[in-house]
Amino acid sequence: MAGYDTVSFLSDYGLVDEFVGVVKSVLRELAPHAAVIDITHDVPPYDVRAASLTLVRAVQYLAPGVVLAVVDPGVGTDRRAIAVEVGERGEGVFVGPDNGLMAPAVAMAGGARRAVVLTNADYHLPAPGPTFAGRDVFAPVAAHLCNGVDLAQLGDEIDPASLLPGLVPVPTVEPSFVKAEVLWVDRFGNAQLNVDPDDIAHLGDRVTLRGGDIVRTAVRAVTYDAIATGQIGLVVDAYGLVSLAVARQSAAAELGLHAGDGVTLEAPT
Amino acid sequence: MAGYDTVSFLSDYGLVDEFVGVVKSVLRELAPHAAVIDITHDVPPYDVRAASLTLVRAVQYLAPGVVLAVVDPGVGTDRRAIAVEVGERGEGVFVGPDNGLMAPAVAMAGGARRAVVLTNADYHLPAPGPTFAGRDVFAPVAAHLCNGVDLAQLGDEIDPASLLPGLVPVPTVEPSFVKAEVLWVDRFGNAQLNVDPDDIAHLGDRVTLRGGDIVRTAVRAVTYDAIATGQIGLVVDAYGLVSLAVARQSAAAELGLHAGDGVTLEAPT
Amino acid sequence: MAGYDTVSFLSDYGLVDEFVGVVKSVLRELAPHAAVIDITHDVPPYDVRAASLTLVRAVQYLAPGVVLAVVDPGVGTDRRAIAVEVGERGEGVFVGPDNGLMAPAVAMAGGARRAVVLTNADYHLPAPGPTFAGRDVFAPVAAHLCNGVDLAQLGDEIDPASLLPGLVPVPTVEPSFVKAEVLWVDRFGNAQLNVDPDDIAHLGDRVTLRGGDIVRTAVRAVTYDAIATGQIGLVVDAYGLVSLAVARQSAAAELGLHAGDGVTLEAPT
Repeated sequence: MAGYDTVSFLSDYGLVDEFVGVVKSVLRELAPHAAVIDITHDVPPYDVRAASLTLVRAVQYLAPGVVLAVVDPGVGTDRRAIAVEVGERGEGVFVGPDNGLMAPAVAMAGGARRAVVLTNADYHLPAPGPTFAGRDVFAPVAAHLCNGVDLAQLGDEIDPASLLPGLVPVPTVEPSFVKAEVLWVDRFGNAQLNVDPDDIAHLGDRVTLRGGDIVRTAVRAVTYDAIATGQIGLVVDAYGLVSLAVARQSAAAELGLHAGDGVTLEAPT
Repeated sequence: MAGYDTVSFLSDYGLVDEFVGVVKSVLRELAPHAAVIDITHDVPPYDVRAASLTLVRAVQYLAPGVVLAVVDPGVGTDRRAIAVEVGERGEGVFVGPDNGLMAPAVAMAGGARRAVVLTNADYHLPAPGPTFAGRDVFAPVAAHLCNGVDLAQLGDEIDPASLLPGLVPVPTVEPSFVKAEVLWVDRFGNAQLNVDPDDIAHLGDRVTLRGGDIVRTAVRAVTYDAIATGQIGLVVDAYGLVSLAVARQSAAAELGLHAGDGVTLEAPT
Repeated sequence: MAGYDTVSFLSDYGLVDEFVGVVKSVLRELAPHAAVIDITHDVPPYDVRAASLTLVRAVQYLAPGVVLAVVDPGVGTDRRAIAVEVGERGEGVFVGPDNGLMAPAVAMAGGARRAVVLTNADYHLPAPGPTFAGRDVFAPVAAHLCNGVDLAQLGDEIDPASLLPGLVPVPTVEPSFVKAEVLWVDRFGNAQLNVDPDDIAHLGDRVTLRGGDIVRTAVRAVTYDAIATGQIGLVVDAYGLVSLAVARQSAAAELGLHAGDGVTLEAPT
């Protein structure tokens, strides 16, 4: 009975209501030895895509244990509540709704080893209503996993291949241009693209950036602070992807870009 | 010397200033074995009513231990600082100002067993000014309780009946209508009413909702996602009360409702 | 091999992205015994001055251990990453960028005993890009310090006198007036001045407040709630400094004041 001692927790619950505190109280009461690490709780409400990208950025840094990920617009419907074990010796378990949220992170963590639908109500709390699965289903399941309960006890085993896949947008790489998408705008206004530095190496160190009404020159830079004032920088960010940035200002605000927007990087003509 | 190992902490301090961090540092230094669970710190400034409703929603899920609840517009005046023990064997202690904030939660937790005014300064920090009782009075008292100090040592025992009561609004239930109040608008825009499902059962599954300039039909629904587009749903929420909801949007924004607003649910004519 | 068991963590990372969660995950994995206390993560982006003032307000209340302070506009440039030991027996270590952020807090904690530049990459994580030093440099260094690694192993020792000093604005005290600066506007709208109560004692209990277009009378008060409606109060705040306040409202909003603004307090004529 191995169990786990860390729960990494991501949700769209926000920090204004008591939702996060109540989930942690349930964890505390059922598995007092487990530490909870908040990944974030300010994913925009119902935004499974943003949650999925946040989780996949974080996953390689998470401590071994349970990942509790709850962005769940379909709560109370027939979407499945699942637990997915990853790692060759079951080093971690992802717990949450089967809506694609966890799929890219599960893949990044080596893929699903086993999966169950959380049908065994013995490991849930009695619920006054069907709308707070984080508190009534996912948190107690996470706690019981920390206490060493085996995945197989939590419900019916399912084929990991049946899990809803995540959507990871792929760039279009052509000799003279790359069509990309803004994956994420961070707090500092850097706009991460779904582009690897290798994807744009053939375009050179200076490209034309197009998107919406924007036509700007963007220049490769090693650090944010190395971007000249007024210039748009292309920086390899902390996750190894290309981000649009400006020095000590918000590139996204300057360019009017949001997560999900398309941009094109072109070789200068 | 029993003591406690969990402090559940609610305040209106916000997370921008260092207030919450400083209170936790005081707890950490005085009672390093105690875990702190944040219920929320984003209660609107000075909003004792909102804090009180948040606490009463959370209280049945909190781990046994100390509840530290600080929304304290009267700090430094003659409002009393108190600790209130609950549970048949003293399973928990509420620490905070005597302004009604804790009263509904204390009642929900079985009522006050003992209460003291926190007059013994030996268990406080020396204070440069009288305005941060969370740091200088309530946090050290909570820590000492975790360390096994008995309530009676913290100050003068008082009659629990002398504590300021909380205000819990009661609905008006009539054969053809129910007058209710919005208790809370959550992050997702659901508007919780002070109405039990039984209170409106006699009105049927489809009612007329009135409030301000609103006249809308509202329909009973089991989950948020079962509400048809464009429809107002009446959902039994995660706390067993009736909430106004719309599918994946904010019902409160659509209806222009805020906490404290009155609404009427009428049987269709 | 003493080590530490608390990391007090301040940054401008915000709580929306996963940055704080990832840093804590790194700490959790490398030093699972260490508790992390969040001072705040909502320092305005890149605002070294605000971070510095927040840290110096909090520092005397922090539990002994490592202080991890990351507001780092020059990340990836040649600004130095440092660790600074304080206390007669090395009771604490500050870890962060050498940009003045930590200097006032280090001074308040008794001054630097030893300092190193964090040049030993054996104690860092491999970094996909140079822009997230909190995750790749500062967090692992903090964790290794918790595990008992000595400061000298982390890099090249430097003269503490070479560290970038912090900027602490000093008031101008004259017989008939005091020129001051707003250090901080807190969540409740209180505007803390860089003024000790002794600095203004000679002006009497009622002064004329000037700043921008403001000319108002301000009156000494012991608590926020003792300020009469419509009046501007001068309160000795929880840090022993003079704050401008109004009862249950935001003084900063009423006066149009922001951090960094200058005001003058004059003896009435």
